[in-house]
Parts: sequence; structure tokens; C-alpha cells
Amino acid sequence: MSENSSKQPLITLLSDFGISDEYVAVMKGAIAQINPMLRVVDISHEIPAQNIAAARFCLMNAYPYFPTGTVHVAVVDPGVGGKRRAVALELAQGFLIAPDNGLLGGVLNKNKNSVICAVELTNPEYWLTTEPSTTFHGRDIFAPVGAHLANGISLQKLGKKINPESLVKLDLPECIQKDDNVIGCIQYIDRFGNLVTNIPGSYVEGNNWNVEIKGRKIKARQTYSDVKLGELIALIGSHGWVEVAVNSGNAQSELDVDSGYQVQII
Amino acid sequence: MSENSSKQPLITLLSDFGISDEYVAVMKGAIAQINPMLRVVDISHEIPAQNIAAARFCLMNAYPYFPTGTVHVAVVDPGVGGKRRAVALELAQGFLIAPDNGLLGGVLNKNKNSVICAVELTNPEYWLTTEPSTTFHGRDIFAPVGAHLANGISLQKLGKKINPESLVKLDLPECIQKDDNVIGCIQYIDRFGNLVTNIPGSYVEGNNWNVEIKGRKIKARQTYSDVKLGELIALIGSHGWVEVAVNSGNAQSELDVDSGYQVQII
Amino acid sequence: MSENSSKQPLITLLSDFGISDEYVAVMKGAIAQINPMLRVVDISHEIPAQNIAAARFCLMNAYPYFPTGTVHVAVVDPGVGGKRRAVALELAQGFLIAPDNGLLGGVLNKNKNSVICAVELTNPEYWLTTEPSTTFHGRDIFAPVGAHLANGISLQKLGKKINPESLVKLDLPECIQKDDNVIGCIQYIDRFGNLVTNIPGSYVEGNNWNVEIKGRKIKARQTYSDVKLGELIALIGSHGWVEVAVNSGNAQSELDVDSGYQVQII
Repeated sequence: MSENSSKQPLITLLSDFGISDEYVAVMKGAIAQINPMLRVVDISHEIPAQNIAAARFCLMNAYPYFPTGTVHVAVVDPGVGGKRRAVALELAQGFLIAPDNGLLGGVLNKNKNSVICAVELTNPEYWLTTEPSTTFHGRDIFAPVGAHLANGISLQKLGKKINPESLVKLDLPECIQKDDNVIGCIQYIDRFGNLVTNIPGSYVEGNNWNVEIKGRKIKARQTYSDVKLGELIALIGSHGWVEVAVNSGNAQSELDVDSGYQVQII
Repeated sequence: MSENSSKQPLITLLSDFGISDEYVAVMKGAIAQINPMLRVVDISHEIPAQNIAAARFCLMNAYPYFPTGTVHVAVVDPGVGGKRRAVALELAQGFLIAPDNGLLGGVLNKNKNSVICAVELTNPEYWLTTEPSTTFHGRDIFAPVGAHLANGISLQKLGKKINPESLVKLDLPECIQKDDNVIGCIQYIDRFGNLVTNIPGSYVEGNNWNVEIKGRKIKARQTYSDVKLGELIALIGSHGWVEVAVNSGNAQSELDVDSGYQVQII
Repeated sequence: MSENSSKQPLITLLSDFGISDEYVAVMKGAIAQINPMLRVVDISHEIPAQNIAAARFCLMNAYPYFPTGTVHVAVVDPGVGGKRRAVALELAQGFLIAPDNGLLGGVLNKNKNSVICAVELTNPEYWLTTEPSTTFHGRDIFAPVGAHLANGISLQKLGKKINPESLVKLDLPECIQKDDNVIGCIQYIDRFGNLVTNIPGSYVEGNNWNVEIKGRKIKARQTYSDVKLGELIALIGSHGWVEVAVNSGNAQSELDVDSGYQVQII
């Protein structure tokens, strides 16, 4: 591996560790011990504790915007220290490292044909220690493995090959077509209170559709400012999903709904 | 442009996107796609949602501490996708990129004579996509434009020249002299509960002045520890404004006041 | 000093400044003004306001994971502008910069024999300004001094030598052996609600011990998933201390306890 840092890919970190404790910094320290020149970008560390579905959504949305070769390390890991596998995957566009608990399913769904190789992390040679703790594999396994991948170690060295089809999948609600309608649900609510549904933007056409939620019918528009301040709007959000928002306001408070709540395209 | 990264300016990011969602990381990914060696510093992403005045205050205070040539990308953008302009400015000390909604007014007020050029971002050649989303210009326009500026592209290429005088100004309360008094208000409250007024430190002299707020008269001192633990103090804060604080405590809770509350120098 | 950035140590920042205001960014700007190539890692800026004990715990836990030569700048500083000293220490493994208020005590306790030199920061040549503010030494003194150390300036130039034994120590509860029991307390509660005690993991052996807290007897196990979802567990946590947790849950809410609460090994 050249020492020229411009050749080294970025590492991204995603976790539910929060930013009050030193956990995230310790992962960065473990990376820096392997190569202090590696550059790290935080995706989020404020995933709700142990919420694999939220982590899956967040990684899926961030993944396409990073350069080819980026190493994504994602650690939301309620099964740490137990029997769940730790895995790494090489895709055409980059690497994924995570516990095998469904976290990677969003990226994999959208990049089905680009998986090159998958391994279980069974080779302690690339860990921080050959005797990892039972509670913090982010520090002891995932971050060091990410640093070695960014350093140019080949995926095959990290452990035994596995079938990517064997990876755990989350059982998430899907949106369904029924007669002329599409029925889905809220899959994510962002910090602005925007309600991101699980209905792909490609299911709707033009502006001639509405979202029905909690008995309210909300008309589709192009952008927030197409309605008055404080008014509800339906649109295709920046994630590419049908979204319900309020111009300069908060749709979650306005409608008093939560993740999983049913929505319909009418 | 040399590939020597030591010649490349920093990019700062300021937004109200929060750090729970992947929005900030997506902006960093968009920057890394243009040049993975660009270095990014976060100013804050916890500006209260759509609060342009708070973003303006925060950028104004951070701006003077960054090296010459730094590219500041600030995105608090309730009008995204609507008619508001997106703009970039070159100043003697660095570059500013933001929606034209008053966000840049604080920096510009304090650096009136250092504006070299201003443009509206009308050239899609420097965007992430020629068909930007209607809701996330941070990703599609502002961050990529910042990366290109940090890469050495000249401001003039980004769009059509505009008169800096035409930029939107926020209508903020000003502090006024009246007889022997100065009357102002709280313009910002920081995480410690320190009350930052809009009265410049240069309006008071020495220690022989007091702040009157909510019927309380608070004596000026040099620093927190000049009063007992838990006692109120008036001082010139690190921002350069007259401030009201509590030694090892929280002046906002102590006085139960909020932004905009009137204060007087007596 | 070589300009080769791979030779330059990392700087870490730890504070109670929060991430809403621009204070942390301003410290990074002050560092970049001295050398824009210096790389900064945040340990945490969400230490509870003015909580020196929490900062001490956080730094102590992060310190061992950073490469030799790392410069740690820690600013939780309720006495800023008053008579407390500002200090810098050189240890075998890195540098520590902080107000002299006990913050460094955790690292120093665990690295007693590795202190090479200690100075009081009395030389304004290495500050941002020779007339520092009375309220923000993070910007005016600590961050610039950290940047100069990372640049290769020798510690001795920063001020007058002091005896490391003279540094302020926090008066923290210690855990004590009494008959067959060990009595300690909760010293820290992390974002998952895990209760970190002040009982070192080395005080317990194997799995044949229990923690008694609030009249409950909690059996030791290896890791979270050794008990059912929602059940309490005692274990040696990743910090190396005896810890009480809930599998996929929050022990603090479950037991309704706070820092300082007594625990016993039985």
C-alpha cells in the first residue's frame, strides 16, 4: 500500500453510541493506531439505542453519496458478545462492515448485483486484540477491520467466505398496491418532523396524487414553499421516498403520528 | 490546482440538519466525491430548525477564527426549492456560500469593506446534479459548490454576478442609546444559559456599569469567579458582546428569560 | 518540524461546550490558524456543564486508545479567568493540556510512572493572543497550545516547570474492601443507561459473583445476551469496571438510580 494518503479511501462510522460518552472517539483512536492518516466521516451516532431499522435506513440513504472504495463501519449491535456473526462485504462501490443483524439490508436491497464477496470476521489478526471484550466490538473488531480494509488489506484475509444470501434480513412492512391505491407506512421521521414513508417516489407520477393519513388528504406539490407557512404538503423527499411535511413546520407534531403509521396514496 | 493538500483551504459546514439523520454526512460525501482530500470542520448542525437568526449569529462568531481562504457553507434554508436565491461571496478572508435569506448578514456587517465579489449560483456545472431536488440543496448545490471553491475554481464561474447590496437582510432589533442609557435585548442564549445581548462590548467602559434586566441590577465584573458560586454577573463575553451569566450556573433558568428580552446598561 | 503531515500527532478535544454553539469550531479554527494540516478528533463535547468528574472519567477511558504522541486538550473549566492554573504535561504516551482542576487525575492515576514533565502555561507566546479573554481559554490558550505541541514545540517552552504532585486532585469516593465484600458506587452512567461502578474488574473473579444494588441481587455473566431481553446483568464492562446493564434495555431506568448510588459485590 502506498503511503500517499490521497489513495486511501474514507472510513464512515455509524452507531447508536451517542456523542456524550467516549465510545466513538475510542473507535477513532483504534483506527488511528493502525494508520493515523486514515480519514473518518461520521454518518450518525444518534441512532436510537439498539434500533437496527433506523440504522439500516440511515446507511442506505448515505451510502450512494460516498466515493467508490469508501469503507462503511456500522455498529448498532444489541447482540454483541453473543452468537450473531460479524461480517464484511465488498461491493462494487465500497465496503460494508457490521454485525449480521439486518443493518446492511437496505444497502444490499438497492445494490443486489454489486456484491463481490462476503466474509465472516473470524480472523483475530486484524482485530485490536485477540481477546475482544464481550460488549464493545466496535472498538475491538469493527473499527480495526475497517482501518485494515482502508489500508488495502484484501477482504478475503479477514475471515471465512460466506454466502451473502445467508445474511439476516429485517422483517419490515412493505408497501403494497391494492386496486388503484398504494398502501404503505411511515418508515422514518427526521429531525424536522418530516414523515418519510416506505413508498418509493417511482410509484407516483407528476403532481396529481394525494397522501391520505389519519383521515386527512394531503395534496402533492413540488416543494415546501408551494404551500403557505404551516400547511401540510406531500412530496417526493430528498431520500427518494414519498414524504409528508409542513412548510417551515413539523408534520409529526401537526399530525401526532409515529413510525409505522399507515399512509395511502389516493 | 496543485494536488498538495496543504494548499487546500478548509470547508466549514453550518446547518440546522441535526446529527441524528444522515443529512450532514451526505453533504460530506458529496464533497468527498469531488475531492476526497478536502478537509471539513463542522461549525454547528444544531441550529434550531429554520432559525436563520441563530445561524447568522453562529457564523458571525466563528468566521474570524478560521484561516484566510476558508470556504464557509451555511445551510439554514426554509425557502429551499422556492424563489430565494442561492449565493456565494468572496471576501478578503474567505468564501461564504448560503441561501440568500439573511444568514450571511452578521459576517457581512462586520466585514463591509472586504467583499470582493458576489454571485448567484446559477451554473449547474458545479452542482451534484443538473436536476437538483427541491428540498435538499445542501447536498445538491451548496456542498458541491463549496468543494469546487476549495479546489480552486474561481467564484465567477459559479454563476452570474450580483450586487452584494441586494442580499436579503434580517430585520433584527438594534441596541439604541437613550439619554445616558443603552437599551438592547438578548440576541442569543448559549448552552450554559449565558445571555448574550446585542450590546457591543465597546459601548461600556471599565467595570463601572450594570445591566438591568427584569428589575434586577447586575454589576459588571471581569470573569465568572469574581462573584460567588450561583451569583449573577455582567461581563463582556468571549463573543465581544455584553453578557449576563451565573458563576457555575445558568442565567437563563435563574432569570427565566428568553431571546428578545430587553436589557439596559445603567 | 517536517511539513510531512504523517509525522504530526493527532489532537483530541474534550469539553462541556456542547455542539449547538460555535465554541468547538472556534477552537478548531484557532488550531487551523497555527497549522491547517493538524488533524483533530473530538472525544466528547457533551460532558454535563462544569462536571469535572465526568470529564475526568471520559478522558481516562479514551486516553489508552490513541497513538503515542497524541495531544489531548480537555476544557471543562468552571474556574476560567480566575486563579486556577492552566497546565500541560508530557507523558510517555502523549500530551495532556487542561485547567488544573482535577480533570487529568484519572489518566495520571493510571499512568503514574510515565509523567516526563509538567508545566504551567505561563508563556503567552504560544497563545492566540497575549490578552486572553477571561471566559474562553479553550480558544485563547488551550487549543493554540495544543496546536503548537502537535507542531513539535517542546513542552518546556510553554511555561514554568511545576511538580506534577502539586496538581489538584478531585475528592472522589473510592471502593473499599470490607470483610468478604467490596463496597463501591456508580461512578458513571452511559447513554445506554449502563451503570459503571468504581469497582475495578480485577476485584472480581470468574462468574461466581453478584452485584447488590437497591436490594436487588444481580448475577454476573459474560455478556448482555447471556440473559433474556430486558433482564438485569452484572459484568465487567468495556471500560474495565464492574457494570450493571439490561440486555437491550436501560439499567438506569429499570433501577431508578443515579451516579453515586452504592453498589456491593457479594
